[in-house]
Amino acid sequence: MKHLRKTLTFNTDSRRAFINITRDVEEAVKKSGVENGMVLVNAMHISASVFINDNESGLHEDFETFLEKVAPEKPHDQYMHNRGTMEDNADAHIKRQIMGREVVVAITDGALDFGPWEQIFYGEFDGKRSKRVLIKVIGE
Amino acid sequence: MKHLRKTLTFNTDSRRAFINITRDVEEAVKKSGVENGMVLVNAMHISASVFINDNESGLHEDFETFLEKVAPEKPHDQYMHNRGTMEDNADAHIKRQIMGREVVVAITDGALDFGPWEQIFYGEFDGKRSKRVLIKVIGE
Amino acid sequence: MKHLRKTLTFNTDSRRAFINITRDVEEAVKKSGVENGMVLVNAMHISASVFINDNESGLHEDFETFLEKVAPEKPHDQYMHNRGTMEDNADAHIKRQIMGREVVVAITDGALDFGPWEQIFYGEFDGKRSKRVLIKVIGE
Repeated sequence: MKHLRKTLTFNTDSRRAFINITRDVEEAVKKSGVENGMVLVNAMHISASVFINDNESGLHEDFETFLEKVAPEKPHDQYMHNRGTMEDNADAHIKRQIMGREVVVAITDGALDFGPWEQIFYGEFDGKRSKRVLIKVIGE
Repeated sequence: MKHLRKTLTFNTDSRRAFINITRDVEEAVKKSGVENGMVLVNAMHISASVFINDNESGLHEDFETFLEKVAPEKPHDQYMHNRGTMEDNADAHIKRQIMGREVVVAITDGALDFGPWEQIFYGEFDGKRSKRVLIKVIGE
Repeated sequence: MKHLRKTLTFNTDSRRAFINITRDVEEAVKKSGVENGMVLVNAMHISASVFINDNESGLHEDFETFLEKVAPEKPHDQYMHNRGTMEDNADAHIKRQIMGREVVVAITDGALDFGPWEQIFYGEFDGKRSKRVLIKVIGE
């Protein structure tokens, strides 16, 4: 069994952001030499997501609107987490839970086995600091 | 390491539908000859889900009601995606995100290692056209 | 390829609860002897979750409040599932869907390849009875 581990680091200018990381995952899979297997891609921080959806700016605005509707950032003191820790990111923990921590993608013939529109995104919900994504490839 | 790849194709009569695909996944696992490993089952389209829950029609109606409450289809122009693309499926992208893109199931002794009520479903949120699900088995 | 299967059993005193199972997963990975691979951890019941987030009681209260807001337990008869089956746990099926069934974690150098705050939780949404979690390790 072959395997490869790689991390990506992000430090976004804004509190919330969506970043397309498909090319980074493709490169890791190619470098691994795995022809058939799986690649796990996950946020290593608990206020961020990795998810697969469309690469379309309007859609990312819709995600933002939806997430703010169901788990609004403010007022910060509506959350026990914020009251107890003096942090302000309880909403980010919930938003990440809705959007998901990780994706697992099949590798076939040495490439991501994707449908026509699938793209991998890093979803940042509490940015402006250094955070990492883990890529782990296994297979043969 | 053994591996098997298979796709399923769906073309639902309605915009939204839930289809039990447990038997299809079981057959793929059996055909793979894998005794211990994992099977990944994912929607290959970004307005559909694969998830595991109960095989009960009342529950599927409850999922529909819940999803329409938090991410309603209409009015279509409430979503930037719909305004920008002349599509009408922004809600489907969000619903799929809530229900999830994929499941990973353990294979033990050549079969899906399931609890008593676990069943695998394809969740369609923008149907009436041909869409695919990927099954990827790895193990030994 | 090495592999290991283990189940954990829970019987919570309350209907809803969050239980840290990180140590149990770490022990299973160590026992497996796998140096590089993946571990799948999933609820075997369809009204419970396994997820990764922060180990902080305030946050767990925030999850509870958020889940009750979007998929309230009562009134029980608001759900078709409850009306059709004489059960009262439709909300638990929905809550589990939001929080997720499973996590897949990378194994590197024989340990969980985790960021600084990642902890694995069992999320119970319909407890007071015996329910299981599956741990499946594969790799080399």
